[in-house]
Amino acid sequence: MHFKISKKEFYNALTTVSRAISTFSPLPAFSGVKIDVEINQLVLTGSDSNISIQTKLKKSDDYVLEIYDLGSIVIESKYILEIVRKIDSDIIELEIIDGVLTKISSEHTKFKINGMLPSEYPGIDFSKPNECFTITQELLKKMISQTIFATSDKETRPVLTGVNMECKDNVLNCVGTDSYRLAVKTVHIDKSLNFNITIPAKSLNEVVKTLDEEGTVEIAVNDKKAQFMIHDTIIQTRLIDGVYPQTSRLIPLQFDYELTIDAAELLNAIDRASFIKSNGISVIKFNLSEEQCVLSSKSLEVGSSTEVLNTASFKGHSIEISCNGRFVFDAIKALSGSLVKFSLCGEMKPFIIQSVDDNSVLQLVLPVRTYA
Amino acid sequence: MHFKISKKEFYNALTTVSRAISTFSPLPAFSGVKIDVEINQLVLTGSDSNISIQTKLKKSDDYVLEIYDLGSIVIESKYILEIVRKIDSDIIELEIIDGVLTKISSEHTKFKINGMLPSEYPGIDFSKPNECFTITQELLKKMISQTIFATSDKETRPVLTGVNMECKDNVLNCVGTDSYRLAVKTVHIDKSLNFNITIPAKSLNEVVKTLDEEGTVEIAVNDKKAQFMIHDTIIQTRLIDGVYPQTSRLIPLQFDYELTIDAAELLNAIDRASFIKSNGISVIKFNLSEEQCVLSSKSLEVGSSTEVLNTASFKGHSIEISCNGRFVFDAIKALSGSLVKFSLCGEMKPFIIQSVDDNSVLQLVLPVRTYA
Repeated sequence: MHFKISKKEFYNALTTVSRAISTFSPLPAFSGVKIDVEINQLVLTGSDSNISIQTKLKKSDDYVLEIYDLGSIVIESKYILEIVRKIDSDIIELEIIDGVLTKISSEHTKFKINGMLPSEYPGIDFSKPNECFTITQELLKKMISQTIFATSDKETRPVLTGVNMECKDNVLNCVGTDSYRLAVKTVHIDKSLNFNITIPAKSLNEVVKTLDEEGTVEIAVNDKKAQFMIHDTIIQTRLIDGVYPQTSRLIPLQFDYELTIDAAELLNAIDRASFIKSNGISVIKFNLSEEQCVLSSKSLEVGSSTEVLNTASFKGHSIEISCNGRFVFDAIKALSGSLVKFSLCGEMKPFIIQSVDDNSVLQLVLPVRTYA
Repeated sequence: MHFKISKKEFYNALTTVSRAISTFSPLPAFSGVKIDVEINQLVLTGSDSNISIQTKLKKSDDYVLEIYDLGSIVIESKYILEIVRKIDSDIIELEIIDGVLTKISSEHTKFKINGMLPSEYPGIDFSKPNECFTITQELLKKMISQTIFATSDKETRPVLTGVNMECKDNVLNCVGTDSYRLAVKTVHIDKSLNFNITIPAKSLNEVVKTLDEEGTVEIAVNDKKAQFMIHDTIIQTRLIDGVYPQTSRLIPLQFDYELTIDAAELLNAIDRASFIKSNGISVIKFNLSEEQCVLSSKSLEVGSSTEVLNTASFKGHSIEISCNGRFVFDAIKALSGSLVKFSLCGEMKPFIIQSVDDNSVLQLVLPVRTYA
């Protein structure tokens, strides 16, 4: 193996595949980046067995890639990233000089790094699943960011640690829930497909980091894996086994109360009171009437806060409702638009938060009982 | 206690005194800020018993301070900082409403926070020690930053965890050492004083954060404490007991070799090789001759690096010298000026690093033995 490549493109590609690599991998080879030098391209692979990322650097007029010898090597990702980031040259040369000993050099600096045998690297099947569709990267970003925060971080019900994507005909529903709150994003795709998969939140976090502001992404799924293809990069993730709960029946259809409020005012008010916690949770209480809307918090240990919500407008009889402040904060943060609408049906009934301008996203929060 | 104050000035003063406060204080009162409202001023105090900071907000034309009732309260620093930072008003009102329950309010928001009794707060003696002198804040910043990094972080010899300041007549020597390296900064003051104190590095770190680019600072010391007075703020720290080692005899006076090099080139070269570690330490080796200067590193596990130092100029017979790369890196970082000079007297003898332009600072590093 022997090639020369532009530092910038090589570094970006290494950064991309390194996202899949865990430094605490039980399998030593998985702490490395696999570099395969083929006739007209470099193929870089990183994986932690749950998520795998492969990217190709093809011969191009936009940057230098000179291939002298084919071959493969696995190099500890933290070492090669550090070398390529700090080397003082625009062009980097890589060459296997003895077994797995790899020379990485620029004009003035030479590194000789102990690599690992490519035969020690597990084979990863990057074949493309059948059910596939294309959307904009911007939309995928929203689908993830508007639902992922509501997933569970507890392993007691593994299926809730992922975002469920259910496609019927050309309607795709993305759902995140930890059983105390629920986020649903509905998207229309240009193909009629049928699948129901749950993707680990951890994998989707890495997908988001690879997405650009513009351009499209091809998504391909089967019942074992999901693939996201962006330019010459494939991000592949395993799915979470198990049946995802039917969440649609949790969403109330009729409401007796409606609160409309400026999103920024409510976010600031919740944030200001967020240090007032009981048992680690900041519970907020809305006292809502057509005359005045008040937000309050209370903790025996810390104290209390009260704030009049000036931009609030409420329809319905007076009602008091308490809930986890962070859940409402996260839900509003995930919505776009400056005005949000709360639709309520009772003091202990789940309520819905939506942007006034965009009904493709629905946030549902369960109230909590307070004895104050 | 009842007063109104401008948010900005109050927040800045709270931030300053909070620097002394440890959230894990064994004494509950020390997790709070003590607020004393006197006739014409507010006095804020924070302390962890080792370091104490007091700042005064006097009546002024530059900001609002209206005092309605004198009195004192201690409020959990993390709560009051959070409230004052996030409150949506330029003026904040504080009032004790019942025992230790304190109302903190703006136009729309009211907090009622459980405070602590001022009688639970230990008395702190802020009386001014006798030996005092004044220097610029800029110079104090340099005295600290050019020596503090060389102090020890191990508690086995407590006296080495501080910076020693020894004043004879009007020459003040600041010394930091962990017994493997040594940093000395020499400063001339405009008074003839005699003292020898060791100030905890932790305290000096907090002093640096309070220093401005301009203006002066008054320093007052005795054998128990040191005080730094900046405007209306007093930072007071206990000293470290014990006799500080005589370090001046460690510094060689005659040299047989001299290396001059561009500081940025050497810093980058050391940084590039810093991931090549054996037992957690990155050992670097200089191969110096009048023809060529080469920097190399080697680790059985990781691999090796070699780099020709282009800007180096060397006088003397050929010599090889190995040392801890981080020590040389820290020493050069602490020097000002773009060109640095190494003065050496042998492969296993301590060597000196100085800026070519500034001999007020001297950095000394001990070599290490290598068997490669």
